[in-house]
Amino acid sequence: MRVKLTVAYDGTDFVGWQRQARGRSVQGDLEKNLRRLTGQEVSVQGAGRTDAGVHGCGQVASFEADLQLPVEKLAYALNNLLPVDVRVLAAEEAGADFHARFTPSRKEYRYFMVPGEAGGPFVGRYGWFCPPIADIKLMQEAAGLLVGEHNFRSFCGKSAVVTTYVRTLYEAELRPAEADEVPDPLYRLAAEGKVLMLRLVGNGFIYKMVRLLTGGLVKVGQGKLAVAEFARLLAEPAEQPPAPAAPAQGLYLWRLCYEANGAPTVDRM
Amino acid sequence: MRVKLTVAYDGTDFVGWQRQARGRSVQGDLEKNLRRLTGQEVSVQGAGRTDAGVHGCGQVASFEADLQLPVEKLAYALNNLLPVDVRVLAAEEAGADFHARFTPSRKEYRYFMVPGEAGGPFVGRYGWFCPPIADIKLMQEAAGLLVGEHNFRSFCGKSAVVTTYVRTLYEAELRPAEADEVPDPLYRLAAEGKVLMLRLVGNGFIYKMVRLLTGGLVKVGQGKLAVAEFARLLAEPAEQPPAPAAPAQGLYLWRLCYEANGAPTVDRM
Repeated sequence: MRVKLTVAYDGTDFVGWQRQARGRSVQGDLEKNLRRLTGQEVSVQGAGRTDAGVHGCGQVASFEADLQLPVEKLAYALNNLLPVDVRVLAAEEAGADFHARFTPSRKEYRYFMVPGEAGGPFVGRYGWFCPPIADIKLMQEAAGLLVGEHNFRSFCGKSAVVTTYVRTLYEAELRPAEADEVPDPLYRLAAEGKVLMLRLVGNGFIYKMVRLLTGGLVKVGQGKLAVAEFARLLAEPAEQPPAPAAPAQGLYLWRLCYEANGAPTVDRM
Repeated sequence: MRVKLTVAYDGTDFVGWQRQARGRSVQGDLEKNLRRLTGQEVSVQGAGRTDAGVHGCGQVASFEADLQLPVEKLAYALNNLLPVDVRVLAAEEAGADFHARFTPSRKEYRYFMVPGEAGGPFVGRYGWFCPPIADIKLMQEAAGLLVGEHNFRSFCGKSAVVTTYVRTLYEAELRPAEADEVPDPLYRLAAEGKVLMLRLVGNGFIYKMVRLLTGGLVKVGQGKLAVAEFARLLAEPAEQPPAPAAPAQGLYLWRLCYEANGAPTVDRM
């Protein structure tokens, strides 16, 4: 049976989504516990390969296996085996041709900044407690430019391995987050209007793209990078990003929407 | 100079407050970074020696050192060096005879339960997502019995090393927590009335005492331990606790009040 999993995880203690020679990966934890549950070697493919420290709220993964239990009971059974920082939110049978990574999808990433706040010991892993931002309007103006098809070469990690830097963003917004738009650890701060959210929906994201875009936008908000210069980096791909990548802990792969399961019925994901 | 520190920490990645042969301790992190800052070997004493996984919100620690910077700047300087899961909330000069551990104090511990909820990947380290509780009124009745002076032998870890099991609790309450009474990761759940809080204020707590009391109270709430039996365990010390200790991640050393700094001006801490 082909299975589609929806998975949430706290990225703090992982080397990332992808299995590596050393260290805990989300993929590795899922595969290990599916092996315990089914007695089979299972290869789990994720939609987005998040980096170390990056969180997942609605990551989607797929695998092929002979299940000895009804698929409706798989999430419960897996959660009993998995460590508390990985949770399977849903498990369902998928079409034979469904593949979390290769079936076209819309992906939503969210990046949470908490400008000018010190942060306590319980929240530092869940957002970027960045310096104060002088002008959020400028950041919003720059973020608005991101919608559409662009060559994102200027905002990609050097080790990105891609055949093209062109991606399409369907939505791009930057604004204070509502309390119900953030993960639990940031709820109080968002309720007090202190959390700034960059929300991006696109057909694909390149290695470090969201974090480098966030870094560039914060530089715009600090008055150290003109909106016109930001626009030029989108129009004329450069080798060097305009600012370092924002730290991993503020980034969340928020959710995915697969066109193969029916085209999105709403404009906004 | 004798210095009093107020410290908050996420206990997840620590072997506990106390320095040990292996692993990260809060005491060890503070001493290492005070050494970097002052060039001196500094011995930091904490008021309560929390276990692995137990959190601190207002832990107090004291040490003696020749500071090369004004004490008002110590918290900022230390926080720049410390990992994000330990934060110094305040640093102030203390009297020559102040000792965080031996100067008499009132300590407040809070234990947070979230009965019948699954919990997500971002909150599992910050509370006990325990089974549903049938009767909270019975638990409240039992918790009310805790106020006063008791021999807590029935609710102590086997390896507790103490000269007496007698401690005084000034306050003991069990009720749904308000949102502003919990740490940030539990804020949303508390706002929705889903967090149950055991709040204890006393002159001292023995090894595993709060967690064993919590385990016993939950057993009362589940109807598996009569309130009369709970009362008898307080009146007639037994060697065996009535239930296993509740897990570490729900426990917080919330704050301390030192009589040497002036008697508490309010009845409630």
